[in-house]
Amino acid sequence: MIYRKGVKRPDYVYPAEEWRLVEKRFYPRLLAQAETYFATANGYLGMRGSFAEGRPAFDSGTYINGFYESWPIIYGEEAYGYAKTGQTIVNVPDTNIMRLHVDDEPLFLPTADLASFERALDMRNGTLDRELVWETAAGKRVAVRSKRIVSFQHRHLAAILYEVTVLNAEAPILISSQILNRQDEAGDNNDDDPRRTRGFQHRVLELETSKVEDARIMVGYRTHRSHMTLAVGIDHVIETECEHTHESSFDGDLGKVVFSADAEPGVPIRIVKYMSYHTSRGAPAAELSDRAERTLDRAIRHGFDDLAEGQREFVDEFWKASDVKVEGQTAVQQAIRFNLYQILQASARVEGTGIPAKGLTGSGYEGHFFWDTEIYVLPFLTYTAPRIARNLLKFRHGYLDKARERARQVNQKGALFPWRTINGDEASAYYAAGTAQYHINADIVYALKKYVDVTGDRVFLKEYGAEILVETARLWVDLGFYSDSRGGKFAISGVTGPDEYNAVVDNNTFTNLMARENLRYAAETLENLHAEDPAAWEAIVDRTQLEESEIGKWKHAAEHMYLPYDETLGIHLQDDDFLDKKPWDFENTPADKYPLLLHHHPLVIYRHKVIKQADVVMAMFLLGHEFSAEQKKRNFDYYDPLTTGDSSLSASIQAIVAAEVGYLDLARKYAAYGAMMDLNDVAGNVRDGAHIASMGGTWMAVVYGLGGLRDWNGELRFSPKRPQQAGGISFPLRVRGRKLEVDITREAATYTLAEGDDLTVWHEGEEISLTRDNPTSTHPLAGNNND
Amino acid sequence: MIYRKGVKRPDYVYPAEEWRLVEKRFYPRLLAQAETYFATANGYLGMRGSFAEGRPAFDSGTYINGFYESWPIIYGEEAYGYAKTGQTIVNVPDTNIMRLHVDDEPLFLPTADLASFERALDMRNGTLDRELVWETAAGKRVAVRSKRIVSFQHRHLAAILYEVTVLNAEAPILISSQILNRQDEAGDNNDDDPRRTRGFQHRVLELETSKVEDARIMVGYRTHRSHMTLAVGIDHVIETECEHTHESSFDGDLGKVVFSADAEPGVPIRIVKYMSYHTSRGAPAAELSDRAERTLDRAIRHGFDDLAEGQREFVDEFWKASDVKVEGQTAVQQAIRFNLYQILQASARVEGTGIPAKGLTGSGYEGHFFWDTEIYVLPFLTYTAPRIARNLLKFRHGYLDKARERARQVNQKGALFPWRTINGDEASAYYAAGTAQYHINADIVYALKKYVDVTGDRVFLKEYGAEILVETARLWVDLGFYSDSRGGKFAISGVTGPDEYNAVVDNNTFTNLMARENLRYAAETLENLHAEDPAAWEAIVDRTQLEESEIGKWKHAAEHMYLPYDETLGIHLQDDDFLDKKPWDFENTPADKYPLLLHHHPLVIYRHKVIKQADVVMAMFLLGHEFSAEQKKRNFDYYDPLTTGDSSLSASIQAIVAAEVGYLDLARKYAAYGAMMDLNDVAGNVRDGAHIASMGGTWMAVVYGLGGLRDWNGELRFSPKRPQQAGGISFPLRVRGRKLEVDITREAATYTLAEGDDLTVWHEGEEISLTRDNPTSTHPLAGNNND
Repeated sequence: MIYRKGVKRPDYVYPAEEWRLVEKRFYPRLLAQAETYFATANGYLGMRGSFAEGRPAFDSGTYINGFYESWPIIYGEEAYGYAKTGQTIVNVPDTNIMRLHVDDEPLFLPTADLASFERALDMRNGTLDRELVWETAAGKRVAVRSKRIVSFQHRHLAAILYEVTVLNAEAPILISSQILNRQDEAGDNNDDDPRRTRGFQHRVLELETSKVEDARIMVGYRTHRSHMTLAVGIDHVIETECEHTHESSFDGDLGKVVFSADAEPGVPIRIVKYMSYHTSRGAPAAELSDRAERTLDRAIRHGFDDLAEGQREFVDEFWKASDVKVEGQTAVQQAIRFNLYQILQASARVEGTGIPAKGLTGSGYEGHFFWDTEIYVLPFLTYTAPRIARNLLKFRHGYLDKARERARQVNQKGALFPWRTINGDEASAYYAAGTAQYHINADIVYALKKYVDVTGDRVFLKEYGAEILVETARLWVDLGFYSDSRGGKFAISGVTGPDEYNAVVDNNTFTNLMARENLRYAAETLENLHAEDPAAWEAIVDRTQLEESEIGKWKHAAEHMYLPYDETLGIHLQDDDFLDKKPWDFENTPADKYPLLLHHHPLVIYRHKVIKQADVVMAMFLLGHEFSAEQKKRNFDYYDPLTTGDSSLSASIQAIVAAEVGYLDLARKYAAYGAMMDLNDVAGNVRDGAHIASMGGTWMAVVYGLGGLRDWNGELRFSPKRPQQAGGISFPLRVRGRKLEVDITREAATYTLAEGDDLTVWHEGEEISLTRDNPTSTHPLAGNNND
Repeated sequence: MIYRKGVKRPDYVYPAEEWRLVEKRFYPRLLAQAETYFATANGYLGMRGSFAEGRPAFDSGTYINGFYESWPIIYGEEAYGYAKTGQTIVNVPDTNIMRLHVDDEPLFLPTADLASFERALDMRNGTLDRELVWETAAGKRVAVRSKRIVSFQHRHLAAILYEVTVLNAEAPILISSQILNRQDEAGDNNDDDPRRTRGFQHRVLELETSKVEDARIMVGYRTHRSHMTLAVGIDHVIETECEHTHESSFDGDLGKVVFSADAEPGVPIRIVKYMSYHTSRGAPAAELSDRAERTLDRAIRHGFDDLAEGQREFVDEFWKASDVKVEGQTAVQQAIRFNLYQILQASARVEGTGIPAKGLTGSGYEGHFFWDTEIYVLPFLTYTAPRIARNLLKFRHGYLDKARERARQVNQKGALFPWRTINGDEASAYYAAGTAQYHINADIVYALKKYVDVTGDRVFLKEYGAEILVETARLWVDLGFYSDSRGGKFAISGVTGPDEYNAVVDNNTFTNLMARENLRYAAETLENLHAEDPAAWEAIVDRTQLEESEIGKWKHAAEHMYLPYDETLGIHLQDDDFLDKKPWDFENTPADKYPLLLHHHPLVIYRHKVIKQADVVMAMFLLGHEFSAEQKKRNFDYYDPLTTGDSSLSASIQAIVAAEVGYLDLARKYAAYGAMMDLNDVAGNVRDGAHIASMGGTWMAVVYGLGGLRDWNGELRFSPKRPQQAGGISFPLRVRGRKLEVDITREAATYTLAEGDDLTVWHEGEEISLTRDNPTSTHPLAGNNND
């Protein structure tokens, strides 16, 4: 259990507010981090929080989910079955730039005299706001106010309201609104950090179409290798009583609409810039450009206020379904809302793609989809936005053919989902922490089961889920074997579990437990289909050539699954050999040698008894019903001290299990650490984007940790923990069409059926029936909640 | 135990001869392989056996040992401590080309009418000879006779005698003698075979100097990244009574000296071409060019006959010291001589470098030096050419500083020699089968000990060896740990043994045994120095900051070395987990799926109980005194059936141990398989170069296998096996200045002290004193030699 301090955001710059993340001064020390904090996104389109002036910037990025360039993965040494084609999210043209000149002097924040400055991510309005007053060297006071919206309602639309008022004088004003293709700014990433994204060796975006018409500029591109298409358009509406003109131009990488106005004292010059992005794998850029024009036309017709109103309504709905309320702790409340809001921004309009590890706030991890989605983000979405959860699972199903192909490439039957991907092909260039993470199959199935259990959507299970179950079960049965030296048990060797500090191991407990659940759920589901729905059974046989006898094999493997266990210590082993490893010298490892992966050769890490994220602990959360309370405590006691938390996925799970085994104080620390992962830049790389999985983990730390929810088979069993301070905590959950509200104070937990039919929940093992007539039930917390 | 058939060389093309490898016809089916068979080299300079006509060719290559270009290793995913800089041997300008035109018609073998054709590697004369008679379409009979020599005496010199005689007519003759920089012909290697060499993405050889003067062309180059320099010169002497002229030119990549002659019937036109290559890491190309000119001047002064005579004398000396005679089996005799001759060609003039895996017969494995040198080639050299053995060990010592640096890079103390290298830096881009092979340290020490034991060269041990011993012992002590779960024994985990089908394992028996010997020999040597040679001790302390207490740690680790052993089966485990792996389905693996590495993802191979080369078996050979006879048999019985022999290093060792444990027939099969590795293209890649390690292994299979030699601590103990056929086998060994001749027939073994002082050897455990007065002793073979 290692704590790193991260970066302190000083209160005088970043005061805590419940609904906004505010920056009260121009604060260059956190410039790079703030580009992530102030990113705006809708799950399809994302823009980093770079300044409208274009400079100074750490990494101005605009990303579209699933819009990638491919490149041949080069290995120093090739081998059979290696992933061949890398995929990297593309930094698409930047439309945020609005350069301001007053008396021909540019506004440049690092040197400008700022009488006031405030930037805020407004999490209730769904806007990024900035207000500042600039005193030019000539003594003119210029108020600049802007709002940036990436629309949740209109997937392809963003807009900027930009308003300049010279308060105390006349002045010639020039505002250059730009669209800039930045691709060639991308440098090589020459450091050893595998989490950062590479630069391209070639020009990615090739111009296909362009058009300049009045204040509108349309450009269309095609990616060089992946042949994806993109259209971007900007248009403008200027409102002012000041005299003004404008001129437009485009030169291949840079388009400009330059507004010139004669500002009069106190008279605002207000420009609304609309930006539209459309992408495709097939349609010509010209066609996308037409679509983008229609998006712009409609946006102009409705106007900015309408857009802002729609945004507010959308965000309202989000909070109604999702808000975690923390009474009396503004900073905690702010952090939790920031975490949830980032999930919203990463997922709201995800349609036909996954959720990148960094959402759309940065290019870290190359915009790839990992298990993060299924294990860390889907629980939140399943309970608050089931339609989006379904989109994400359906997206996985869409790549099933590629997963079948990948299984063949690595000499296996069934299907193997890629460890990291954008287009469905495995993009991991390091198999030991990539392809070897076969658990991805079981993670997807786990999320599928939870979705079906919590939403009751058995149609989805039948139409999409069953096929995934057949192919994943086939992989497990083919991968493992009945091991003589393990008493004939079913062993799975040569895999990597979630803990990437122990790679290519035998019988990773997490993997074996999750594989067992995968096999069981597949067998149960397919047996049900066979018994109850002949048409569905026939369809699945047609799609998979399933033979009934296979189901027996799945059950047999599941029944005989080998789980390494040490009788002396009474603990589950992380893998067969974990106890036999060399102890890590924690005492003599200074803080600046963490994360270990940036300072030690992989062989050094692998041969030691040291953990990046504790996957036995994780299994005890995901499959808690498989462990006794005593086992959980012993396992936690053993693994927690060996866990560096070098993965951002670690803290939230440690928090949940710490709470369960009775370490409430530790649980709170872990939860706070996870919640502040990005705001305090604990991992030191928030510049590269937000840790979306950790954000989902924060919600889990509240609901499963503090709330003590366990929901195996969709039964909601709570064992709430006492909140640390006086104020209570509450959160809503959507379950099979009902809405449940949970409210936890230091004394009691209250369960309220806010919408829908009767619902049974459990409080400390006691069954509670919530009905329309009797929707609320309050229960004292259990006695073991001592601080 | 898998046999693959390889390619049959038909007898009517390749008849067996004792001293020559002959090709009786132009035989395009084996064109690529024959370029390797007919390569000529001296350990410094090597030329593939491409035709003088330049075409047809598979891969015309000219290589200089240690002359490499570097390139940044690009990883799909970077990590700390990875090797950064690749090194690849460079295909230097080809000087073999002599294009012949008669009546302006080119000689082109695939279409020419050849009245006769013979090409032969003459292993007694040290020449590559070709004679052919070409009947032109116009009916002219043209005899073309050539000899190619890469001089053993003159390291930087090669020469071609090229003689054309029009037998039956007059004809205008044109001979274009060329020097061609082929570098830009190198294509990308796009297949998955990690053993082949990559093409460069950039132009490697940059022209620095050039000069054309009469029939002499001198060129100087510098490599683009590694900044090595190279000068190549050619000059010519023409002797004929026919009228002739010549013209010379050079255009940057191609130099030509074109001879035009009016051939008269039966009058030979004889051209001798001299070629000189000089290389350096520091000297300017112009200076090297001067050196090359002096080499050419001297060669011309002495003439071709003198060169050929010197070559013959050098080769004579080699055979006197090294020849393994096999009576009555011409094909076997030819194969063994071919193997030994290739080692000569790979090692004769090695000065300041190692021996590349392919010698200088091809660019496979990028011209890198591996453990092959120490474990497979040094035994032969130690017993036949100790001066060269010493050069090679001194070369390793020269890279000790880089090995220290590499240890730091992978977070270890002491020194870690690179798994593969040219310039001393680790060049393995795949750590699991590269850096993880820590056993390289112990392999070098093993070879050092054998060299010292067999030659008695304790000065070398003191001046060079001791420092290697200190730093390698330090690495082992730092790498391993005293393991609680293994009864406090010293365990070494996270390493790869010689068997690359089981990577990154714990307690690889081979590694642990070899490390123990490394530690013991270090302790013994340094204790002796400390006790007996204060000056040498002081020097070593000065160079290594050795503290006396360290020696105790080495001994303690050696004494407590953990060796995994299965009591039930009574076998040493290849590693801790070997028994727990999934059985490989040998029965359903068709022959065309071997070698497994070209058809299976590494994870698939690693999780199975399948072996590329059996390293427990190898340990039983190298450290045979550590095993009982029963253990050896049990181990061999267990591991041999699991061994695919996908490594060319496998067969010879299996042969030696099979012979020892009583499987004489199997031993012979393995030995024959190893001996024919290249001549039958068993591995399917002889086109990329000869398997020099396997060739050293062939010598070992004779001497250690059939001869039953075991030589721990330099004591020569023989347990000869009965030869298969009537004829006997004999071979010489040089031991501490003496020359011993061993002669084995089906009935008896005879030991003869041919040179030097008294020598004690052992036959079947019986001590035999050979003296000047009584130099010969004959003993019947042991009774257990039943066929």
